[in-house]
Amino acid sequence: MFDYKLLAALAAVVEQAGFERAAQVLGLSQSAVSQRIKLLEARIGQPVLVRATPPAPTEIGRRLLNHVQQVRLLERDVQAQVPALDEGGVPERLRIALNADSLATWWATAVGEFCARNRLLLELLVEDQDVGLKRMRAGDVAACVCATDRPVAGARSQALGAMRYRALASPAFIARHFPRGVTPAALARVPGIVFGPDDLLQHRYLAELGVEGGFVHHLCPSSEGFVRLTLGGLGWGLMPEQQVLNELARGELVELIAERPVDVPLYWHHWRNGGELLERLTGHLRKAAGECLVPPGQAVG
Amino acid sequence: MFDYKLLAALAAVVEQAGFERAAQVLGLSQSAVSQRIKLLEARIGQPVLVRATPPAPTEIGRRLLNHVQQVRLLERDVQAQVPALDEGGVPERLRIALNADSLATWWATAVGEFCARNRLLLELLVEDQDVGLKRMRAGDVAACVCATDRPVAGARSQALGAMRYRALASPAFIARHFPRGVTPAALARVPGIVFGPDDLLQHRYLAELGVEGGFVHHLCPSSEGFVRLTLGGLGWGLMPEQQVLNELARGELVELIAERPVDVPLYWHHWRNGGELLERLTGHLRKAAGECLVPPGQAVG
Repeated sequence: MFDYKLLAALAAVVEQAGFERAAQVLGLSQSAVSQRIKLLEARIGQPVLVRATPPAPTEIGRRLLNHVQQVRLLERDVQAQVPALDEGGVPERLRIALNADSLATWWATAVGEFCARNRLLLELLVEDQDVGLKRMRAGDVAACVCATDRPVAGARSQALGAMRYRALASPAFIARHFPRGVTPAALARVPGIVFGPDDLLQHRYLAELGVEGGFVHHLCPSSEGFVRLTLGGLGWGLMPEQQVLNELARGELVELIAERPVDVPLYWHHWRNGGELLERLTGHLRKAAGECLVPPGQAVG
Repeated sequence: MFDYKLLAALAAVVEQAGFERAAQVLGLSQSAVSQRIKLLEARIGQPVLVRATPPAPTEIGRRLLNHVQQVRLLERDVQAQVPALDEGGVPERLRIALNADSLATWWATAVGEFCARNRLLLELLVEDQDVGLKRMRAGDVAACVCATDRPVAGARSQALGAMRYRALASPAFIARHFPRGVTPAALARVPGIVFGPDDLLQHRYLAELGVEGGFVHHLCPSSEGFVRLTLGGLGWGLMPEQQVLNELARGELVELIAERPVDVPLYWHHWRNGGELLERLTGHLRKAAGECLVPPGQAVG
């Protein structure tokens, strides 16, 4: 078997963002931690850490950390039955990839109480769906929220519901660009906002309105930034309705063409052998997400 | 000189996220666009595009796009004097790297009106400061907002002011973990939230309170996600005051230890030869950011 003393040293250096704090957490001297990392590197024949401030795992280091995490999750299941085995009492950290808009809206509401009750720490990675699934495949995250339903090998997926998007702009933007009302053709000639090269929501919206060809747009890879740019009158774009309920209620954002929502279905992907905690989180999420999202089957489009 | 017909084809394919829309924008057939890209690749001897959906620039493609952007910016200065040269009338897109918290708070307010008036489109990249400066050095972005004042070669930097952060948590989180009041030692034993491995704000805050050693924390690389996790009671963390004014006013977030803000100074880095538009944006930003940020010299710490 692996030498978990060495792997735990690696995990501590990365999690504590430095050798000094890792040593304090492990109750070792700093040079002992350093020795363990060097020994680990000597055994596998390549570096596991980039010695920067803070130290960052190399690719192989990242794989090892992920393995440590899986082992910890499985240990956790055993500990529930054999509590005496528990050494440190440091809570788990689960690596989960999810799309930026989920993180900016329903995610924390859905999992907050569960994490607090189970002393579960999260390491969240913001990734668009393809990258999230690639990370699942590489075993780099334990679970992922994305818009694709097909699971990768060794994983399961289930429908959570859909996020409802609306095409919005500020009243000042509308007054400036559409003095005679919003028409699809006019919409294609004023600046839009697009999250990134993989975000085709705005393109889809225009295509459904029958607009052919491209449109000028800002690129803004941040959910909150997207809303701020829209509020600032820089452009129009599709935003999760949930994220801007207050702005809609106050009239700071207005739907361009009334009642034309776009629903994006979301799926939860998780390892089959992720342990009992991940199973319970999955069960919890199915219920909790249902309260935040448009139920599967009621989505538009 | 370079063949700008070929470079414009590359720019259109990337900006329009596809050959078909690029062809429409350029007024060419799709096969003509494809021919131009192939010719460009034959000339430089390597691919400029990854043929995915949507097509993505290779590293050399990205450098060429950046060059196209610089040339367009310089052309824009000439066009102001020689309007007849203007062919397309497609607005500029300026690539700017900035930290997530700036984008989530003051950025759009500061630049919104300027962009609308000047028909300026933005391509925003969310990067922590070191990566932002590396991109400046590589000529990959025209400007960057970060917490380091030293400019890279060929660039200038100027102080914008500081963002004020406060260590906050939800009342439920405080009631659950600090029934007898918040103390520094107790704070280190409950879950915090950290943006990513480069975010040492929470570490600094604890160190200034005299707390040694590590602390357990979630990792959440999203400004809005950070606030949502805190509201959801998952942990405590330092957030830009501006981002949570409403939550503070409504008592949904509470400062852990009264009146202990942390100010993070911000600097604007920009190319010296970035053209007249970038110069004007710089002048505008100096004034506009001043209204959103803590003025340089009045910052804490």
